[in-house]
Amino acid sequence: MHQWHLLLIEDSDEDAVATMRGLRHAELNLVFHRCITGDEALDYLYQRKRYAALGAAPRPDLILLDLNLPATDGRALLAVIKDDEVLRTIPVVVLTTSNNPKDIEACYRRGANSYQIKPVDYARFKQILQTMLAYWFQTVTLPHPLG
Amino acid sequence: MHQWHLLLIEDSDEDAVATMRGLRHAELNLVFHRCITGDEALDYLYQRKRYAALGAAPRPDLILLDLNLPATDGRALLAVIKDDEVLRTIPVVVLTTSNNPKDIEACYRRGANSYQIKPVDYARFKQILQTMLAYWFQTVTLPHPLG
Repeated sequence: MHQWHLLLIEDSDEDAVATMRGLRHAELNLVFHRCITGDEALDYLYQRKRYAALGAAPRPDLILLDLNLPATDGRALLAVIKDDEVLRTIPVVVLTTSNNPKDIEACYRRGANSYQIKPVDYARFKQILQTMLAYWFQTVTLPHPLG
Repeated sequence: MHQWHLLLIEDSDEDAVATMRGLRHAELNLVFHRCITGDEALDYLYQRKRYAALGAAPRPDLILLDLNLPATDGRALLAVIKDDEVLRTIPVVVLTTSNNPKDIEACYRRGANSYQIKPVDYARFKQILQTMLAYWFQTVTLPHPLG
């Protein structure tokens, strides 16, 4: 079964656990990588520091990005990813509690592939995550970086 | 029920009919707009010529874009949309028969929100379109242009 790498950038342990639990899927071989801060995510994406070893930071097939993160926040991180010639083809789904229209508008403007508001209700959250998986991993075609 | 506007840019009548048929959805109030060429789509998006009248060309909530179009093709049109400050927040789903990795890579690079290969089998095509609707209209939050 093809292995898919998901990078979850989320500072809350509770939210990260709930998200990974909601993303369990019988038909998909998903490997989760989690970064707690925007700076750690940059180290992961540029394979620096603790992610410098060969194979320590596989290129993600999909990035799930929280907006409110300490230091380099999700908005700034999105800009870095979408301005980078190598990283920009990785789909980024913003996954946040913010329903601020300015955040929504700004994220689509900065190149977010989609914007997802996290509901409080876990059953609904799980349903959202399952639709997300069905869409990105069983419906659309993801990019495979050219040699 | 909230009305959603979909802009389908597709030169083949047969494909356009099949797509609109596959997009029928009991729970969604969808309004379809179809442009046959890239140039017609530019007239629609910039409300020019036959689309100049008030209300003739509502801003689409989602664009479904074929790649191989006469004259201004889908690749060029995608670049125009994603380079335009006003239009770029509209999600663009590329919907094509091309499975060429260079097209896939180039479309994500140019800012396509996702890339969808059209299968030959209609039942599978319908399933894809229904997942697409569930994702964009019942799961994610779409941008609403500010003021």
